[in-house]
Amino acid sequence: MSVTAPRGFVASGLACGIKATGAPDLALVASAAGAVPAAGVFTANLAAAAPVQVSRAHLAASAGRAAAVVLSSGNANAATGAPGVAGAERMCALVGEGLGVGADEVLVCQTGLIGIPFPLPPVEAGIPLLVQARLADREAARRAATAIMTTDTMCKEVVVEAAGFTVGAMAKGAAMLAPNMATMLAVLTTDARCDPALLSGALRAAVEGTFNRMTVDGCTSTNDTVVVLANGESATAVGREALTDALGRACGDLAGMMAADAEGATKVAHVVVTGAVSDDEAHRAARKVADSALVKCSLNGEDPYWGRVVSELGSAGVAFDLDRVELSYGGVAVCRAGVAVEHDDKAVRDHMQGRAIELTCDLGLGAGTGAVLFTDLGYGYIDENRTTS
Amino acid sequence: MSVTAPRGFVASGLACGIKATGAPDLALVASAAGAVPAAGVFTANLAAAAPVQVSRAHLAASAGRAAAVVLSSGNANAATGAPGVAGAERMCALVGEGLGVGADEVLVCQTGLIGIPFPLPPVEAGIPLLVQARLADREAARRAATAIMTTDTMCKEVVVEAAGFTVGAMAKGAAMLAPNMATMLAVLTTDARCDPALLSGALRAAVEGTFNRMTVDGCTSTNDTVVVLANGESATAVGREALTDALGRACGDLAGMMAADAEGATKVAHVVVTGAVSDDEAHRAARKVADSALVKCSLNGEDPYWGRVVSELGSAGVAFDLDRVELSYGGVAVCRAGVAVEHDDKAVRDHMQGRAIELTCDLGLGAGTGAVLFTDLGYGYIDENRTTS
Repeated sequence: MSVTAPRGFVASGLACGIKATGAPDLALVASAAGAVPAAGVFTANLAAAAPVQVSRAHLAASAGRAAAVVLSSGNANAATGAPGVAGAERMCALVGEGLGVGADEVLVCQTGLIGIPFPLPPVEAGIPLLVQARLADREAARRAATAIMTTDTMCKEVVVEAAGFTVGAMAKGAAMLAPNMATMLAVLTTDARCDPALLSGALRAAVEGTFNRMTVDGCTSTNDTVVVLANGESATAVGREALTDALGRACGDLAGMMAADAEGATKVAHVVVTGAVSDDEAHRAARKVADSALVKCSLNGEDPYWGRVVSELGSAGVAFDLDRVELSYGGVAVCRAGVAVEHDDKAVRDHMQGRAIELTCDLGLGAGTGAVLFTDLGYGYIDENRTTS
Repeated sequence: MSVTAPRGFVASGLACGIKATGAPDLALVASAAGAVPAAGVFTANLAAAAPVQVSRAHLAASAGRAAAVVLSSGNANAATGAPGVAGAERMCALVGEGLGVGADEVLVCQTGLIGIPFPLPPVEAGIPLLVQARLADREAARRAATAIMTTDTMCKEVVVEAAGFTVGAMAKGAAMLAPNMATMLAVLTTDARCDPALLSGALRAAVEGTFNRMTVDGCTSTNDTVVVLANGESATAVGREALTDALGRACGDLAGMMAADAEGATKVAHVVVTGAVSDDEAHRAARKVADSALVKCSLNGEDPYWGRVVSELGSAGVAFDLDRVELSYGGVAVCRAGVAVEHDDKAVRDHMQGRAIELTCDLGLGAGTGAVLFTDLGYGYIDENRTTS
C-alpha cells in the first residue's frame, strides 16, 4: 500500500521495453476524479531533463492542478534536445487521452542514463495498457513503485495516517545508493483538502527538511523530482502546519529507506552541527563534512580521525574558531577547545564498527543547528559508478 | 639541485625522530646573507595549523623579510592549541639563534597528521645539527627536499633559468597523491632582485595559475604553504611580469611532478572549459567537473559517460544553456548542441585507456576560459585514505 492508500487514487506499473532486461519500467499514479491540486519540487540543475521541463510547464499552465503522473525508468531523457521534450510531451498527451484529461494536467518523471536518445515507440505502445491497468488496490501501487526502480534493491513505499487525512508515497532512491543513475523520484498522494498554494508551500518545506538533508556525493541530478496530488476526498481541510508535518513524515520515511538501501555503502552517517551562528551556516558546515571524500573514506576505514572533520569545518565558508570546537563520535568527545582530549578509545572504536555513525560538531559560537545524512566512500561506490554498462 | 641553485642559498635535511620509521623529517632552507625579501601564500582554511599562524605573523612583523624556512614532516601541528603554536615559535627561535637572525625572520612549514600533540623534544635536539649541516650544494638541497616527503614516492625539485636570474624550488605534493596528509608545501628561492611587495604579488599570481588549478578531492588542507625568498644576488632587478613568469614556471613544474606522482590514481585528467561568460565562471565550472566523484569514477572505469559532465556543468552555479554545449574527449566531440553526436567511438575509447585524459567543454556563451588538473577516483584513493595507521 502506498500511493493508493488515500481514497480516490489509482496506480499501475508494467514493462514496456525501455530496459533491455525486460524489468518493469513504466508507471502511473492518477486521481480517479480528474484534475486536483498538485505541486512539485524539481532539481536545481540547469541541465534539467526533458520531463522536468515539461512537468514544470504543465504545473504552470494548469495553475497547480494535475490528474496524473506518468513515470519511466531506464533512460533519463536528459540531454536529448527537442526530440526528448517532444517525447515527454507525447507521454503526457497519451495519458491524457486515456484518462480523458488535458495533456497539461499530466506530469512526467523519468530516470536512467543521460544523453541517450529516448526510445518513444515502446512507451507509446505501453501507455494505453498502463492506463487500462490502473487500479486502487495495494498490488497496483506496488507495481507502480516497482516500475520506477533502477539500482534500488527494494521497493520504497510509505503511508502516513494523519488527523483526518492520509498520505501515501512511493520513491526510487538512488540518492544514497548508486548515483550512477543518481536521480531520486518521489510521488505523494493525499486525500487532504487544500489549495495548490498551500500544497506547494507544504511540499517545499517537507522536502527541505528531509531529501535536502541527505547527500551521497554532492552531485545534483538532472531529473530529481518530488510531486504530490491532493484530491480533498477526506473532506478534511488541512492547515499549513499539519500538511507539512504529514508530507514531511512521508518524505522522511522514504529518505530513511534510501539510506537503508545504500548497497554501495557500508555506513550510514549522521552529522549534526550545533553552535553555529545560524541554522543556515550549521547546515552548510554539516554538508561540507558530509560531502568530504576524506571524511567518507575515514568512515569506510572505521577510523575516528577527527582532524579531517576539523579541516572540513574550517574550510566550509562559515564562521569558525577552532579554539571553541568540540567533536564527538557516538556521543564520546574526542576533541574539546580545538585539541585532542582523553577519551574512551574502545567506546569510539566500537561505535565506528557499527553501521550507523553519529558525528556531532559543536562550533561554540551561537544557536544555529543543522544535520545531514550521508554514507561512506569505499570500493562499493566505485564498483557502482565506474562504468555505465 | 633545487633551492641551492640560485647563488647565496644553503640547505640541509636530516632525521630527528618525529617519524617513527626513522625517515628524514626536518629540513632547512636559508639565505647565507641573513634576511632578504620573502613572501608566502597560505591555506584559506580557518583551522590553519600552528606553523601557518606563526609564519603569517613573522612575515607581518618583519615587513616581508626572512632569512630561513624550517620544515618538518610527520606531524601537522594542527589542532594542537597553544602548545602547538609555542612549539612552532620555538623552532623559529632555535633556527634564529643558530643563524644569528631574529626568530621572526624565520618561517616554518609542517605536514602530517592533524590533532596529534606536536613532539617538540626531538625537534629541539635536531635543529642545532640541522643548522650546522647547511651547505650550498646539490646534495644538501636534495636532503632538504627528501625530509619533507610524506606519502610522496619521489623527491620534487626544480630549477628555472630566467633572463639574468635563477629560481630553485622544492615541494612535497600530496596534492594529487594521498590526501591522507593532504598538505602541499613548496619553498622557492631566487637570486632576482625585488622588493617584498613585488615578490608577494608575483608569488600570488604564480600560485593562482598553477597549484590553485589542480584538485584531488576539493579538500583544503590546514597546512598548505608556498614561500619564496629572494636575495637579489644576481643583481638583476626584475619586473613583475618576468618574476611571475619564472615563479609560475617553477610552480607549474612542481604541480606536474605531483600529478606524475599520483600513486593512488590511475589517470591524470585536464578539464578545459571555454565559452563561459567569464574566466572566473569557466574556472568554477571546470572545478565542479574536476571535484565530481561521479566524473572521477567514470575516468577510473575508462567510461566516456558525458552525461555526468553535463550534469555537473548544469549545477556549477554558472551561466549555462544546454543547447549550446559541446563536449570532447581527447579532441573528439561526443556532444554538440547539448545532444549526443555520431563520433569515432574507438578513438574515444582508446583515449580513455591512456593515463592522460583531456576533456574539453565549450559552453558556447562567451569568451571565458579556465582549466583544472585532476585525477580519477578508484580503489587506490580509498586504500590511501581509509585509515591513518
